[in-house]
Amino acid sequence: MSRHEDPAASLAVAGLSCPVPANEGDRVLLGHGSGGKLSAALIRDRFLPRFANPALAVLGDGAIVELGSERFAISTDTFVVSPLEFPGGDIGLLAVHGTLNDVAMMGAEAVCLSCGFVLEEGLPLEVLDRVLDSMSAAAAEAGVPLVTGDTKVVERGKADGLYVNTTGIGRLRQDFTPAPDRARPGDVVLVSGPIGRHGIAVMSVREGLGFEVEVESDTAHLGPLVTALHQTCGAGVRSLRDPTRGGVASALNEIAGASGVGISLEGTAIPVPGAVNAACEVLGLDPLYVANEGVLIAIVAPESEAAALAALRSFAVGEGAVRIGVVQDGPGGMVTMRTGLGGSRVVDMLPGDQLPRIC
Amino acid sequence: MSRHEDPAASLAVAGLSCPVPANEGDRVLLGHGSGGKLSAALIRDRFLPRFANPALAVLGDGAIVELGSERFAISTDTFVVSPLEFPGGDIGLLAVHGTLNDVAMMGAEAVCLSCGFVLEEGLPLEVLDRVLDSMSAAAAEAGVPLVTGDTKVVERGKADGLYVNTTGIGRLRQDFTPAPDRARPGDVVLVSGPIGRHGIAVMSVREGLGFEVEVESDTAHLGPLVTALHQTCGAGVRSLRDPTRGGVASALNEIAGASGVGISLEGTAIPVPGAVNAACEVLGLDPLYVANEGVLIAIVAPESEAAALAALRSFAVGEGAVRIGVVQDGPGGMVTMRTGLGGSRVVDMLPGDQLPRIC
Repeated sequence: MSRHEDPAASLAVAGLSCPVPANEGDRVLLGHGSGGKLSAALIRDRFLPRFANPALAVLGDGAIVELGSERFAISTDTFVVSPLEFPGGDIGLLAVHGTLNDVAMMGAEAVCLSCGFVLEEGLPLEVLDRVLDSMSAAAAEAGVPLVTGDTKVVERGKADGLYVNTTGIGRLRQDFTPAPDRARPGDVVLVSGPIGRHGIAVMSVREGLGFEVEVESDTAHLGPLVTALHQTCGAGVRSLRDPTRGGVASALNEIAGASGVGISLEGTAIPVPGAVNAACEVLGLDPLYVANEGVLIAIVAPESEAAALAALRSFAVGEGAVRIGVVQDGPGGMVTMRTGLGGSRVVDMLPGDQLPRIC
Repeated sequence: MSRHEDPAASLAVAGLSCPVPANEGDRVLLGHGSGGKLSAALIRDRFLPRFANPALAVLGDGAIVELGSERFAISTDTFVVSPLEFPGGDIGLLAVHGTLNDVAMMGAEAVCLSCGFVLEEGLPLEVLDRVLDSMSAAAAEAGVPLVTGDTKVVERGKADGLYVNTTGIGRLRQDFTPAPDRARPGDVVLVSGPIGRHGIAVMSVREGLGFEVEVESDTAHLGPLVTALHQTCGAGVRSLRDPTRGGVASALNEIAGASGVGISLEGTAIPVPGAVNAACEVLGLDPLYVANEGVLIAIVAPESEAAALAALRSFAVGEGAVRIGVVQDGPGGMVTMRTGLGGSRVVDMLPGDQLPRIC
């Protein structure tokens, strides 16, 4: 968090011999990892021009590739959450749920996972054991085998205990390809449950805050909800997204931008638990930007609304599913929200980081 | 490298609330990442029992899974090399070559790659650009698209500039499944070129050593060599391995152990560049344990020896291919080497780390 310290120190440790740039704008900032505008610019300006290919150009949660006679979704995610353990979960649960959810949001059924660990020298093996137990339990519950892995170790003081990458492969269903660019005017915006719990659960431990009501992370596998949406609504499902880094606001901005539509939210309909609201007030956060790990946003055709809500509500994790807004002609790429007082405000994508190291 | 500092400091940063174990044996050691005995024990005791499944049980460089109507190889690898740039390459080249080579060693043709970055706040964007240029060039040269990625940012002082995970998927060829457990008595042991260059290249920069002759990393994509071995020798190719962490000695020990055979090396036949030998003497290292990133070991049937050597030598990177030993009945799991003086010694797997953070 010491963003204004002398950068030469850590670079000397890394053994880099390159000249040190003159200003902060030439360096990686924490906000580049936030899932907001800076993240988007980093991907757009540095990654996409170098790796241009049809699969990468689709800016969803992963890529679609043909393997043999079928199409598969591939998604990769590295988890650097700090602390490693928090109310309701740990980095192992997140690493399995997060990548399975990214695969699910592409409309695919997960087939297998890989994992790659960076372990910090000195990490208690009992902590590693607990994280591995979590990963094992989450993978078993989802019925998705973890088929291969890799382990590297770095010196004390690096890696905050451990980082873990998971990469998932999922089989795409025929005629079911929800994508960020498929929202159409008239569609409705559904959310599968109360928002903001994961981010607040992590922040409460990190900041040592003792809230009256403990907030637990919502981390959960959302694949079964997507299967139910597919079975009940089929092509009526336009876009699916799990609003992790950057929260509901960033996910909806991405969809509005990719589809060239406006999204109008009904502020009073958005389900925010009281304890999340209270914590957000203390921390100066907006729940719309707080990370979730067990919530999905579904943009569905208006005629699919009732069936989609019923499908989501048939799961414990989706029992709080509600409609929170509608898709409109315009203004293109913009998310707005009607407030309880009858006014309206723009829900922009954040430029940088509200909550670093949240997943 | 400060292995004996008070471990509580870094754990407090990580926010862990678990009790601190009483002794060093309950913690992750640098040697757990070495590719030697400690690495093997970590995988055997902690990972395998929790993630038991048929794909994971094969201890090769990755997993074999059925996707649709075909079988695919999946391999994942996280790169934490320090420094990020070294003679002959950088972490980006390694990340693409390393995973492509793991896929190739399973006998598969690479189809696509994913990448997951952990960036350190303050990393000069020009360094990131150079690493991405390397990855882009290596992927393009191999003809394998990088289809999806993820970027996280951690605070200054973490991650040594950047870590990167790559995961690769490759299509398995029909009737071509080289594996560590397929070596048979009478087979011959081939190496595709001079050994020890990658490890020495990295160590020379890290330790600030000015050797008279600069050693460059051998980092290279070995897929074309495997394709040629498949075309010329088919099932005569028993086992393939790229001897990275832990070097030739560890790779051969794994094959000897998995196949239950003995491997006898001819010490004078092993190609070690003079500059590598000289650097190893200064550093107190044995070239057999130094990492390579552009060398493969092939165990082939005796009748395939000539064709395999010709196939390897048809590539610039394989022009130094030679036979370095033979597979014997026993002693099972043991690698021995005849020395120039007519003696013989055991080439054991190292217990811990000779060179940490080498890939």
